[in-house]
Amino acid sequence: MSAPDPRLSINQATIKHADLPTALEVTREAGIEAIGLWREPVNAVGLSAAASMLADSGLRFTTHCRGGFLTASDEGARRASIDDNRTAIDETAALAAAGAPGSTAVLVLVAGGLPEGSRDIAGARERVRDAIGELAPYAADAGVTLAIEPLHPMYATDRCVVSTLGQALDIASDFDADVVGAAVDTFHIFWDPDVLTQIARAGREGRIATYQVCDWKTPLPADVLLSRHYPGDGVIDLRTLTQAVIATGYDCDIEVEIFHADIWADDPANVVRRTAETFAASVSPLLAPVKAPM
Amino acid sequence: MSAPDPRLSINQATIKHADLPTALEVTREAGIEAIGLWREPVNAVGLSAAASMLADSGLRFTTHCRGGFLTASDEGARRASIDDNRTAIDETAALAAAGAPGSTAVLVLVAGGLPEGSRDIAGARERVRDAIGELAPYAADAGVTLAIEPLHPMYATDRCVVSTLGQALDIASDFDADVVGAAVDTFHIFWDPDVLTQIARAGREGRIATYQVCDWKTPLPADVLLSRHYPGDGVIDLRTLTQAVIATGYDCDIEVEIFHADIWADDPANVVRRTAETFAASVSPLLAPVKAPM
Repeated sequence: MSAPDPRLSINQATIKHADLPTALEVTREAGIEAIGLWREPVNAVGLSAAASMLADSGLRFTTHCRGGFLTASDEGARRASIDDNRTAIDETAALAAAGAPGSTAVLVLVAGGLPEGSRDIAGARERVRDAIGELAPYAADAGVTLAIEPLHPMYATDRCVVSTLGQALDIASDFDADVVGAAVDTFHIFWDPDVLTQIARAGREGRIATYQVCDWKTPLPADVLLSRHYPGDGVIDLRTLTQAVIATGYDCDIEVEIFHADIWADDPANVVRRTAETFAASVSPLLAPVKAPM
Repeated sequence: MSAPDPRLSINQATIKHADLPTALEVTREAGIEAIGLWREPVNAVGLSAAASMLADSGLRFTTHCRGGFLTASDEGARRASIDDNRTAIDETAALAAAGAPGSTAVLVLVAGGLPEGSRDIAGARERVRDAIGELAPYAADAGVTLAIEPLHPMYATDRCVVSTLGQALDIASDFDADVVGAAVDTFHIFWDPDVLTQIARAGREGRIATYQVCDWKTPLPADVLLSRHYPGDGVIDLRTLTQAVIATGYDCDIEVEIFHADIWADDPANVVRRTAETFAASVSPLLAPVKAPM
């Protein structure tokens, strides 16, 4: 097959059971140029070792996954979350500096769900906004962009009270676009009747911090967290969504992040090859080069 | 215990395995005053027999469930769906006429999902709008209100391409409010950051055709269709949502519609009693009587 799309980035969650050296190696050996990392495998080897490994790989670094979980109402837990997110910001800056030129210092934030016993989703959302307000100056100093990721509404109560791109942008609007943006992931937002309007808005406001593609199909598996598929294997209109993102001028790498039991059980080298193939078939044709001005 | 709330209506799906005579009997014997019916058990006994049984029960009729499934792209299937919905409109009118005074001639519409092999969710949504345009004059002649029901986005591709109350109201806005409204069901819309704004809008536009309550909690069961719980057994902020609906002046009956394997396996008489108890505890206190004008 031909070389993978130069804009494809493998999100490490797609090969969840690979450790960091393996993830870097299979990605590079497949001819893929970029990778998004997760905190757990990075911290399993230690941040400075991880940064060295990344530098040695020659890969660009696209996002760090993930910070957030900002909805605790208990003060001790809230403070611990803020502190942990500061650490994640430091990690993001270090990894982006270690990645190849074109790396992006983006920390993906998953807001968190309702605290145990709570029904106050509106209050939880306010705490997310407040916590991002606390983190934003720290992120700005570190040169890191916080990417608020709306998650599909089926995760609204146990994982992420931010459910739409519009809602993420409303929160982000309190802050500089370089510091707080949104993660645009097809799986989470494709169903939204307002999605194209909000993608255009996100672009206009300079807030598409990362674009991620994967697919959706039904029936959902018993664990709905593991219902993400290779691009093109489901029913998301990737053409319309990707064209809308590209039309905003988005010119960074595009991650594929898949959570699926069968894919996690597969050999990581197979998974990255298959990811490159499906991306080439279903996304690459939509990435028309930006025309130079006349 | 005290008598059930006079505004409580049992949606027949809550006691799915009861036939129509049983459903009417257990509802009436529990002291509940109203019921929402489903087409299949009505047609199992025949419409005129069903209307007689309903009249004999002395119960109010609140909704007929359900019409819709309007997304077919094949002309034959589309035509069959329109014809079937006309029949459902006729059934709704007959049942509302047979119910006790205060019955409401409301047909709940579930839009339908993507046709097999399609990724065109925008096109499917346009076909829903077009089909409702075909059905509206027929419904108007029959004195029936079509209630477009937004379903939770986890059903967007296989069951209902209408995912938010705002989207339902946008479709309804092409038609008279007496003819096309929306079904407001807490389970489907509680997660929406815009839900309170859209409930207020629905009230202002006269389009709350039915208000239905049940609850949500996680983890979801393997079949996500069966993830609805008794009011108060989950994490939905029923207080805020119900107060928002009541604040619009909504003064009709309120249905409880639950799909859950354990509840379906329970004795129907137990289920209606438990429904009345949970409704009394979690919804009734919010239904302040409307004050008479001074």
